[in-house]
Amino acid sequence: MSQRIRNGFLGDNYPRNMWWVAAKADEITTTPLARWILELPVVLYRTENGDPVALDDRCPHRWAPLSEGRVDGEQIVCPYHGMRFGADGGCQLVPTQTNIPAGSDIASYPLRESGAFVWIWMGDPAEIDNHEPPVDMGYTADPDWSVVSGYYDVACNWVLIRENVLDLTHLPFLHATTFKQNDWDSIPKSTIDGDVITYRQSFDPAPLSPLFCHAMGFSETKPVARTQVGTMPSLAVSFSDWHVTDPEPAPGARDEFLMRGCHIVTPGLRGRTHYYWAAAFDIPEVDEHAIELSRRNVIEAFDEDKHLLERLQSQVELDPRGDETAEIGLAADGAGLRVRQVLQRRLEAEGRGFES
Amino acid sequence: MSQRIRNGFLGDNYPRNMWWVAAKADEITTTPLARWILELPVVLYRTENGDPVALDDRCPHRWAPLSEGRVDGEQIVCPYHGMRFGADGGCQLVPTQTNIPAGSDIASYPLRESGAFVWIWMGDPAEIDNHEPPVDMGYTADPDWSVVSGYYDVACNWVLIRENVLDLTHLPFLHATTFKQNDWDSIPKSTIDGDVITYRQSFDPAPLSPLFCHAMGFSETKPVARTQVGTMPSLAVSFSDWHVTDPEPAPGARDEFLMRGCHIVTPGLRGRTHYYWAAAFDIPEVDEHAIELSRRNVIEAFDEDKHLLERLQSQVELDPRGDETAEIGLAADGAGLRVRQVLQRRLEAEGRGFES
Amino acid sequence: MSQRIRNGFLGDNYPRNMWWVAAKADEITTTPLARWILELPVVLYRTENGDPVALDDRCPHRWAPLSEGRVDGEQIVCPYHGMRFGADGGCQLVPTQTNIPAGSDIASYPLRESGAFVWIWMGDPAEIDNHEPPVDMGYTADPDWSVVSGYYDVACNWVLIRENVLDLTHLPFLHATTFKQNDWDSIPKSTIDGDVITYRQSFDPAPLSPLFCHAMGFSETKPVARTQVGTMPSLAVSFSDWHVTDPEPAPGARDEFLMRGCHIVTPGLRGRTHYYWAAAFDIPEVDEHAIELSRRNVIEAFDEDKHLLERLQSQVELDPRGDETAEIGLAADGAGLRVRQVLQRRLEAEGRGFES
Repeated sequence: MSQRIRNGFLGDNYPRNMWWVAAKADEITTTPLARWILELPVVLYRTENGDPVALDDRCPHRWAPLSEGRVDGEQIVCPYHGMRFGADGGCQLVPTQTNIPAGSDIASYPLRESGAFVWIWMGDPAEIDNHEPPVDMGYTADPDWSVVSGYYDVACNWVLIRENVLDLTHLPFLHATTFKQNDWDSIPKSTIDGDVITYRQSFDPAPLSPLFCHAMGFSETKPVARTQVGTMPSLAVSFSDWHVTDPEPAPGARDEFLMRGCHIVTPGLRGRTHYYWAAAFDIPEVDEHAIELSRRNVIEAFDEDKHLLERLQSQVELDPRGDETAEIGLAADGAGLRVRQVLQRRLEAEGRGFES
Repeated sequence: MSQRIRNGFLGDNYPRNMWWVAAKADEITTTPLARWILELPVVLYRTENGDPVALDDRCPHRWAPLSEGRVDGEQIVCPYHGMRFGADGGCQLVPTQTNIPAGSDIASYPLRESGAFVWIWMGDPAEIDNHEPPVDMGYTADPDWSVVSGYYDVACNWVLIRENVLDLTHLPFLHATTFKQNDWDSIPKSTIDGDVITYRQSFDPAPLSPLFCHAMGFSETKPVARTQVGTMPSLAVSFSDWHVTDPEPAPGARDEFLMRGCHIVTPGLRGRTHYYWAAAFDIPEVDEHAIELSRRNVIEAFDEDKHLLERLQSQVELDPRGDETAEIGLAADGAGLRVRQVLQRRLEAEGRGFES
Repeated sequence: MSQRIRNGFLGDNYPRNMWWVAAKADEITTTPLARWILELPVVLYRTENGDPVALDDRCPHRWAPLSEGRVDGEQIVCPYHGMRFGADGGCQLVPTQTNIPAGSDIASYPLRESGAFVWIWMGDPAEIDNHEPPVDMGYTADPDWSVVSGYYDVACNWVLIRENVLDLTHLPFLHATTFKQNDWDSIPKSTIDGDVITYRQSFDPAPLSPLFCHAMGFSETKPVARTQVGTMPSLAVSFSDWHVTDPEPAPGARDEFLMRGCHIVTPGLRGRTHYYWAAAFDIPEVDEHAIELSRRNVIEAFDEDKHLLERLQSQVELDPRGDETAEIGLAADGAGLRVRQVLQRRLEAEGRGFES
């Protein structure tokens, strides 16, 4: 495996022909939402029927951002001169004239809702059926699960986050005092099957990270066994499953638990990424105090990632050497390098390479 | 009329050989004023005789901004080493030596004061007499008129404002709750004579906008008839005349009024515009309360334009598609498209096209 | 002497093969310090033995800034995955594997500590012995001297500061009300010997600047004679020696004093300069009140330079004419033009010219 595959993080390094997450489902309402996705301005809204819609956020007339307008029925109304567009992007009204000029329709992007998230296709519409559908996120809206989630607008390229979450040997360093899962000092076995990357690793009983122990009812010092399984079913999302076993459960008590971490990235403006995270426990109705503790602790740890990756991105952007020098590969990069392989393959399939 | 004339708003799209407004007359004093005009740094000041002066804001020696210096008599003194320049840009003193080095003179730009405004010529000096003089703005300093005025530094290209103020069919949309002149839902007839653009339109009695009714002594519900006349005598300034007739005046009361709106734009730094507005009533000494009401309401409405146009400009600047796609033309663009025609003609006369 | 030598201040105009000041000695501790020097990211720290170290601030693995990590013994530990580097830049540990991959070493920059400052060599290592050593700054840590010092991060190119401090005929203009040394209205004689520039000038008795008089025990109105000697032993540092003689000393009192001003510049990011200043009196233990008065007055005056030079830089950066026009030379530019000559010679010796 060559260690010299670039990730192209200073440039446009995202495949178009795939589903990306556009927003959390509850972010899309009848009040238009402006969001840069794959470096394009998109307006997201829900029709009065509740269907999510994604359109080019630029009126074809004088280029006003439609996201400054309002929703009426299934239409969005341009804030400037009141032109109206339907969910398919078709122009349906020009207030000051009876005919609709040719060329007045705008791009509409296919959306798919899955659990707590809405996915968007911004590539070639003819290619949709040739590619994997959006990843099933149904569990995020399943009452048998308890979910903590959050969103960051991160000033770094999406691949930096993707690589970060697929190599957790950074826990004992970047997160030594927050994650406190400092036994993660060896390298998991990683495999690739098609474009799906997986790693797996088992750990002897040790205290579970304060990010997750409270929701499972463990103290911060209680030793439990863990099997860590990471999966990246799509460049857009990866899971970090924490299979936890209590070696000495109380009589009749449950002794196995799963925390499914979820890392969703979507390229925004150049050098910026929408990052959605979720920590889902296969436990119904975890009490609010434990959930809040988990949320607070996750945020404290992920703030460390955000800070480091933003400094990394900014420093390389400012550095006249840019990304011309090669990075050194480590054995721990197994899963991360497979990300680069998948990425390179997807870009080549679109007739593109890295640009920076 | 082709709908495909670009306005070039991402680039340098301003004619040089014409008069632009440099500043309000009362902004120019014996304290130097720094202002970017047509993407060049200009220092504006008044001599002790009261004559306005505009010079290149860059000392020829070590390029210090003269606007950081001070005025002495008719001279401006460089803040750095004390070199002195007269109103014609001629270097008149180098403190540490007796001779004046060749090449020490700097550019001086012709100015013309008219009413409350001072105009500047930054084009070819030999072309001044071949072009229209500054527009007569005498009424803005006439005691028979009551004037409300203001200034915005807007982060958008000047043409976006120019087109905005010449097509008021955006009132019922962008300003539905501020201007409240929501009967402006049809298209005026527009004409062009030389480079002068005019539109004209009459409206049945309806309540007059709260931006203007108070100064004329009308309540916000009193129906009055309006004839709206727009004129653009120069790319630098356009007028929006509101001829108002009271269909049922009180006995002996005045029944005809004019509110002359004035929209002055001057390109500043790339993507920024100096925008001066004035609302002038042909009524002497309107009471201060009505004037303040007018000022407050105009600002509330114009803030809506500023917000929308700045988002528009910024969004197109960030969009990798830039301005390569064509805009769709509407019938309502009559006056606006004539602006583009005049602009294109003026740029061609200077041997230039749009650059972006 | 041609007046048309550019200083290249919009571009990369710094020689690499010379010593520059990296930091004040007390800024470098066992807590890593991030600093851009010659447009490259550098991390500075002290080993537990107290030796200063400068390394490339970019881990060779995934490019994290090492300055976000921590120091352990003589090593710096990468914040991301814990790779360790020694003072020579050699990688000494990869936590998750036993071997060190080829190419894991990073650049280490030679440092030299001298008085209160630490110097860095970022050029060709083979050239070190062919060039002048760091300037002796021992007096800045000598108890027979009393030193006031400070640091500015200035948003202008280093040459603008270098030229500023070598032509003090700007005192009566930029600093008329702060320095109050307004007799500096004539031009000193300047000479060049190799790359060392010197100027010398004597002044009749006059009140001494409030920046320095208090430390010498003079009132702000007491007339004293001055001989001003400027020296630039290196592009990185220049001295401004104020030799002061009291023409009517009290019986038995000291009648000669020296204030050695010191101006250190180091290029940082494009268009930014690290500027260290010091005012050192050849008087042991000047009382704290006089020192504070001196510090406050120096800062008030140097703030004027910073403000003017930052506006100058920013205005020329924004000006479409850039630095294409020629500057006018004055007789007072003698020392400043010699700076440009030295600079041009040094760049040519490195096979480079000005780029912008």
